[in-house]
Amino acid sequence: MAGPDVQEFHGIDAATAQPIEPAHAASTLADVAEACAAAAAAFDAYRAIGAEERAAFLEAIGDEIMALGDALPAMAARESGLPLGRTTGERGRTVGQLKLFAQVVRDGRWRQVRIDPAMRDRQPLPRPDLRLRMMPLGPVAVFGASNFPLAFSTAGGDTAAALAAGCPVIVKGHPAHPNTDAMVAGAIRAAAKRTGMPDGVFGHVRGPGNDLGAALVQDPRIAAVGFTGSRGGGLALVRLAQARAVPIPVYAEMSSVNPVVLMPAALAARGAALGEAFVGSLTMGSGQFCTNPGLVLAIEDEGLDAFEAAAAAALGKHAPQPMLTGGIRAAFAKGTAALAGNPAVRELAAGLEGDGVASEMARLFATDAAAVRADPALTEEVFGASSLVVRCRDLDELATVLESVEGQLTATLHLDPADHDDARRLVPILERKAGRVMANGWPTGVEVAHAMVHGGPFPATSDGRSTSVGTMAIDRFLRPVCYQDLPEMLLPAELRDGADGPKLVDGKPA
Amino acid sequence: MAGPDVQEFHGIDAATAQPIEPAHAASTLADVAEACAAAAAAFDAYRAIGAEERAAFLEAIGDEIMALGDALPAMAARESGLPLGRTTGERGRTVGQLKLFAQVVRDGRWRQVRIDPAMRDRQPLPRPDLRLRMMPLGPVAVFGASNFPLAFSTAGGDTAAALAAGCPVIVKGHPAHPNTDAMVAGAIRAAAKRTGMPDGVFGHVRGPGNDLGAALVQDPRIAAVGFTGSRGGGLALVRLAQARAVPIPVYAEMSSVNPVVLMPAALAARGAALGEAFVGSLTMGSGQFCTNPGLVLAIEDEGLDAFEAAAAAALGKHAPQPMLTGGIRAAFAKGTAALAGNPAVRELAAGLEGDGVASEMARLFATDAAAVRADPALTEEVFGASSLVVRCRDLDELATVLESVEGQLTATLHLDPADHDDARRLVPILERKAGRVMANGWPTGVEVAHAMVHGGPFPATSDGRSTSVGTMAIDRFLRPVCYQDLPEMLLPAELRDGADGPKLVDGKPA
Repeated sequence: MAGPDVQEFHGIDAATAQPIEPAHAASTLADVAEACAAAAAAFDAYRAIGAEERAAFLEAIGDEIMALGDALPAMAARESGLPLGRTTGERGRTVGQLKLFAQVVRDGRWRQVRIDPAMRDRQPLPRPDLRLRMMPLGPVAVFGASNFPLAFSTAGGDTAAALAAGCPVIVKGHPAHPNTDAMVAGAIRAAAKRTGMPDGVFGHVRGPGNDLGAALVQDPRIAAVGFTGSRGGGLALVRLAQARAVPIPVYAEMSSVNPVVLMPAALAARGAALGEAFVGSLTMGSGQFCTNPGLVLAIEDEGLDAFEAAAAAALGKHAPQPMLTGGIRAAFAKGTAALAGNPAVRELAAGLEGDGVASEMARLFATDAAAVRADPALTEEVFGASSLVVRCRDLDELATVLESVEGQLTATLHLDPADHDDARRLVPILERKAGRVMANGWPTGVEVAHAMVHGGPFPATSDGRSTSVGTMAIDRFLRPVCYQDLPEMLLPAELRDGADGPKLVDGKPA
Repeated sequence: MAGPDVQEFHGIDAATAQPIEPAHAASTLADVAEACAAAAAAFDAYRAIGAEERAAFLEAIGDEIMALGDALPAMAARESGLPLGRTTGERGRTVGQLKLFAQVVRDGRWRQVRIDPAMRDRQPLPRPDLRLRMMPLGPVAVFGASNFPLAFSTAGGDTAAALAAGCPVIVKGHPAHPNTDAMVAGAIRAAAKRTGMPDGVFGHVRGPGNDLGAALVQDPRIAAVGFTGSRGGGLALVRLAQARAVPIPVYAEMSSVNPVVLMPAALAARGAALGEAFVGSLTMGSGQFCTNPGLVLAIEDEGLDAFEAAAAAALGKHAPQPMLTGGIRAAFAKGTAALAGNPAVRELAAGLEGDGVASEMARLFATDAAAVRADPALTEEVFGASSLVVRCRDLDELATVLESVEGQLTATLHLDPADHDDARRLVPILERKAGRVMANGWPTGVEVAHAMVHGGPFPATSDGRSTSVGTMAIDRFLRPVCYQDLPEMLLPAELRDGADGPKLVDGKPA
């Protein structure tokens, strides 16, 4: 297979920055075209498969992933630098996500069946028989994410949601974890084979560089794109998708600083405890969560002083872990150096020193609202364990800073009952800015549930109308089709008279 | 108000191409900015208004439109050239649409409330309390359409859906019907005032040229755009929206030839009757419907000959009506002349001659599948009463032509039971191509209902994931927000414990 013209690449042990043998053959542009052709050919067959069979396929992927045993979370930990406990938990989340989407497929609510029966005698004109259901968009390209080598990668949320919707999926594996990626891709292929899915329901390409991903997004057979990564990478894919003869939706989750507002009564009651807990959230996974708390807003008073002192003390004892890749580590070092060198910014604390090869020390900075007003770029994401406390004079100033931040995945309030009246003024701002508004917790934990939203206004994502986590994620790969007066035998099964499943008849549940 | 620098413009009597007095002052760029500022200021207040009050506002708009009396449909007919019966019917549809959206608002299903109760004792980690609801995107810019001066214009579908969703609306009135537009805008303002809506809930700008619309789409306070019109106009707005610092969704309904497939048994049984009925659909409203049947596909046989003969006979007697604008008339004349001059195309029939000032004769052409394969542009829209019959040798060839057409609003089958087996092969193609698949009817009638989809894959629309007609249209102006562990008093009313309204609890209706 690997002839002289085939490019090879290696996984990298994140902790040592050394290559992991053996090498992997990179996919070629011909491989991309072949995968797209196979996905397009599989589309009609795959979407016609019944709910039970499709659900069984999703569950089988989960089973095959578990059957890989401990070698999978071990390899994910090695390639990502994340602790084994974390990658083991992430495997559970990945499998749980697939099983939850199997339930969603069986439940059938995702089809949004609506039936408006004919009124043939209506005056002045009869009403036809109208039946609506959601159908899948078509083959979906999914880009694996470096920071969740399992849950947002090869068999991650986008793959699960798209397969659940009835879309064939082509994964572009993330080059930072090719071994993990290959193991999971094999599990999906095994599950597809075992459950009799059509060839082409799952395609897989991999390699360094951007040309494979670009070719995938530009292929006319691809109908939608899911991506989690940097703002630059996401915007590049959006531009490619929009420049196509037929533009397609791109769901790119890009960057977020996830503002945390510390309200005065909460700070007065437990400023020090909040500071310590904050550092736990900030440094989790080397700060490489999309929901990392990179911005803290509070009104300056003694409670905030206590928060900062406790946070600084906790951070000072923090031993850094390897970062995901050398590129991410270098970008973090550059971003934090820029903050440290900014005369409007004060460094509150740093963690224990990193080795500068795989790890970097965590950083905590402070500034004031006037500085943010003068330079809004101060609130932009530095991916990793870096955060900025913005000290505000009063609630007005805090609200003004909040209004100035970009779209976010999350916005958090720490508050006590005495803060509720002031918080009532802030909630309308937070819900305009973020996909998830939370209280008295930390954003770095995203429950996979029916009511979860992991999404948010631009630039947190490229399309704030959807979520990438939770069962509502299936909606992003669907579009509505209405069937008017179609003979029974030509209707999709779920629209026929007497079909089971949730539906609205004349707008009412039936 | 109309100082020396203010540009003035006139409505045009479509039938005579003469200006209608008095002149209207065109809005300025400052007016656009002012409307956007007012809409942004109104957003939080308007979206906080209860369902009953918002529904009453929508109903009041309908009442105020009816209170304008017969002068409104008369003016709409004069400015559009459409028959009075049609504009009177369109008024009914417009008012009915507003009342239907009032029901939608009261029903509450649009909020998609989901609650996943906390599981504080769950191991290894507790589950927080998660509550999801849809919230409005923000101020919406709506562009009035020339071909539906009431139902798709100032108080048309997009306006009704966006106001129902809780979005302030700024309408850019279509310059082809400024008097109609002014009357309806006045009705909306009166309704807003009477029902105590916040200032800025409805804004209105008007004028010739593209600069006002461009400024509206580029204004950072606008969160989404609704448009119905030409492909060029729609794509220009999409480009502007994508080039913003914060890109926004554009729902542009652009062009569609709405393929009609005549199946052999249906043609054999009633080819002539189909031909006559087809001409009725083709020429309705001078062919200026988005769902006009501009492409007919059939297998060549005697039934098709009978269809063509009957269609030609009916068309030959058709007296043309004025077209909407001089520009549309000129584009129609140019497009049909190009078809007539194409050596691969044969003219089957033409209607009675137009006056070349306001009306043009209807045209019917034929070609074969090989010609379409050689020049796919043959199947592109010529807006107006022009259609192209594509003669195919067999079902394979017909399926191939169908696969080659662009995205469509509708796709129609005329068929008899003997055609069902063959049709079963075509339906998967049709549903991939169109937002509405219909049988044994004509596409030029779009029911306003729960199960309607008036949308479809690009280039029929710029975003095939939604509909512009029917109650599902409200979804296009919403996005999900999750509230995690928020204190009861800070939650939106519909998410509080014990709140009425439809909801899913742990994914199940409760």
